[in-house]
Amino acid sequence: MKPEHDAGAAPIFLFTDFGLPAPYVGQMKAAIHRTAPAVQVVDLCQDLTPFQPRPAAYLLAALVPYLPVGASVVAVVDPGVGTERRGLVLKGSGIRLIGPDNGLLAITGHRLVDATWAALPDPESDACATFHGRDWFAPAAAQLHTGQPQMLHDLGDIAPVGAPWPEDWAAVIYVDRYGNAMTGLRADRGMRQDQTLKIGGRTVRPARTFADVPVGEAFWYANSIGLIEIAINQGNAAHQLGLEVGRPLFGG
Amino acid sequence: MKPEHDAGAAPIFLFTDFGLPAPYVGQMKAAIHRTAPAVQVVDLCQDLTPFQPRPAAYLLAALVPYLPVGASVVAVVDPGVGTERRGLVLKGSGIRLIGPDNGLLAITGHRLVDATWAALPDPESDACATFHGRDWFAPAAAQLHTGQPQMLHDLGDIAPVGAPWPEDWAAVIYVDRYGNAMTGLRADRGMRQDQTLKIGGRTVRPARTFADVPVGEAFWYANSIGLIEIAINQGNAAHQLGLEVGRPLFGG
Amino acid sequence: MKPEHDAGAAPIFLFTDFGLPAPYVGQMKAAIHRTAPAVQVVDLCQDLTPFQPRPAAYLLAALVPYLPVGASVVAVVDPGVGTERRGLVLKGSGIRLIGPDNGLLAITGHRLVDATWAALPDPESDACATFHGRDWFAPAAAQLHTGQPQMLHDLGDIAPVGAPWPEDWAAVIYVDRYGNAMTGLRADRGMRQDQTLKIGGRTVRPARTFADVPVGEAFWYANSIGLIEIAINQGNAAHQLGLEVGRPLFGG
Repeated sequence: MKPEHDAGAAPIFLFTDFGLPAPYVGQMKAAIHRTAPAVQVVDLCQDLTPFQPRPAAYLLAALVPYLPVGASVVAVVDPGVGTERRGLVLKGSGIRLIGPDNGLLAITGHRLVDATWAALPDPESDACATFHGRDWFAPAAAQLHTGQPQMLHDLGDIAPVGAPWPEDWAAVIYVDRYGNAMTGLRADRGMRQDQTLKIGGRTVRPARTFADVPVGEAFWYANSIGLIEIAINQGNAAHQLGLEVGRPLFGG
Repeated sequence: MKPEHDAGAAPIFLFTDFGLPAPYVGQMKAAIHRTAPAVQVVDLCQDLTPFQPRPAAYLLAALVPYLPVGASVVAVVDPGVGTERRGLVLKGSGIRLIGPDNGLLAITGHRLVDATWAALPDPESDACATFHGRDWFAPAAAQLHTGQPQMLHDLGDIAPVGAPWPEDWAAVIYVDRYGNAMTGLRADRGMRQDQTLKIGGRTVRPARTFADVPVGEAFWYANSIGLIEIAINQGNAAHQLGLEVGRPLFGG
Repeated sequence: MKPEHDAGAAPIFLFTDFGLPAPYVGQMKAAIHRTAPAVQVVDLCQDLTPFQPRPAAYLLAALVPYLPVGASVVAVVDPGVGTERRGLVLKGSGIRLIGPDNGLLAITGHRLVDATWAALPDPESDACATFHGRDWFAPAAAQLHTGQPQMLHDLGDIAPVGAPWPEDWAAVIYVDRYGNAMTGLRADRGMRQDQTLKIGGRTVRPARTFADVPVGEAFWYANSIGLIEIAINQGNAAHQLGLEVGRPLFGG
């Protein structure tokens, strides 16, 4: 058994909009298991907003630095599943990411200093047109992760979708179960540490952590993955400020 | 260490109505771990509709062909937990399924060409009357999965519950987080590929995949596990068409 | 590779209020994996009520007896994250628990006959002030679990938060997806087995299991982890009786 096959090798992470208790993620894990039986598969995020690759792209880019070297990520937010579009492989900083060419990997590609792109071979002819996660991306990731040969292609003249997207995006990209709203803005880029924001008619001041503001008060802070996040101490910022994924942060 | 014990052996899949973040599934995994410490345990589906073994039975039968050979499934949708009913073991096509005798395994039994049934020994006297998943089915599955002897019984004259259920069922069996409604009808049985359905007063046409219909339009398609599924492109079919698990698809 | 590192060693269990599909749990697993790559990580409970360590403390104490010897638990319900408070390690009965000093481990400490407490070293200076689960508790647990040295401290004169909390608590501590409401009362302490309760104006009688009462009737029973739980057969007790986590069971 080769070292990259063993139970102690880096995991394959799943990053999808399938929801977790539903049968889709379990089928992806079964598909990975056929090819890479001893590899651990970890749910990185499974409740991405359906049909919206762009916000997910900014979240993924912020999460990648926290993954162990050697990890693979299978990323699936794929409203165009079953249509003609490429499957991509992005490598850099010891991490490999696999997903559809719809922008989902684009921001991570911007950020990785040593990013290299390739295209997957087309899916098998019996791949299900509505579940490329199970029949195309997961098996390809398992093969690449365990060092099995894959005929990857050069991207040629066609840049990945999302290549022109900005490095940072002033929009809500994820809302968690507390109602905290992550944005596509990195906290160390262009925002003064004492800057107040105007959101939903309310003034939102910066704070270091929840315990630093009164209960019920809205604030923004640099969150645990380096993004600007809007929160209300022991309250639900998304509901109270009308924030939702894809919504521009300013104006509107 | 025997091969079937190692981290690369086929997983044990859990198929329940317990919900995933709740403490029930974690306790089942702890129980499996005591007996089969190196086996991977994978969530196949954890948000089945509570109290309804029948729709879950049709979903399970459609999922089994996608599991790796050697896998076990612990299936628990069990409104009669704690009452007198048998625990069953179904084997076929290299898969082993364990669960209560309430119909949950019945359709899989119909479909497996080499199906064999057996009954589990009664639960231990200290098994909790409200959590046979943890105290009866999970430990039994772990023992069988790792080749430890179990005194299985013949079913005798009493057929499993659900034996008379039809091979296909024109009803909603699962609704996912997108609001797509799976049915108990296999797409390759008796439905013309151009057949329109009348559901909730709306005409539902067939399509190959989401991208083939306009945004907001209802359609049916052969889903990724071979079942007829009702969906609305970038919409919520269950809410908009009034579909819920157990509801007959036609008439009513 | 030392035995405690292998894939068959006892798992690390996560017990948090992060929700499961969200990216937080995945990051904790990634952090554990860096230090303890072959250890299995199991979701014990991930939907604890946010901001309330006390109800979670009673749930954790009831779950610990069902964990395999050698297991570790990382427990995080942490409204004070980023403020000055200790990180604790509790050991007893072959189980190790790691979490913030806010009461979360207190009831387990009461119950373990051989409980010993220690304090973690302070978090690294680059630990994120809002995610000690990832940057402090998870890595510390992984190091302790795999036998790597950690400089643990004596608690000194300051007892853990929650030390004066009662052994049993007449309040709702967890509501599951069925609407069943667990309480902080152990069924074998002080409640007569035929005692009726008055809750939300309704009389709640004892029963052994769901199947023993008519559909729609409220009852209490000794649940699968030894706690008194309020349920309605095939109904939602929390909604129908107005129960929520933290609510006193009697009076009010």
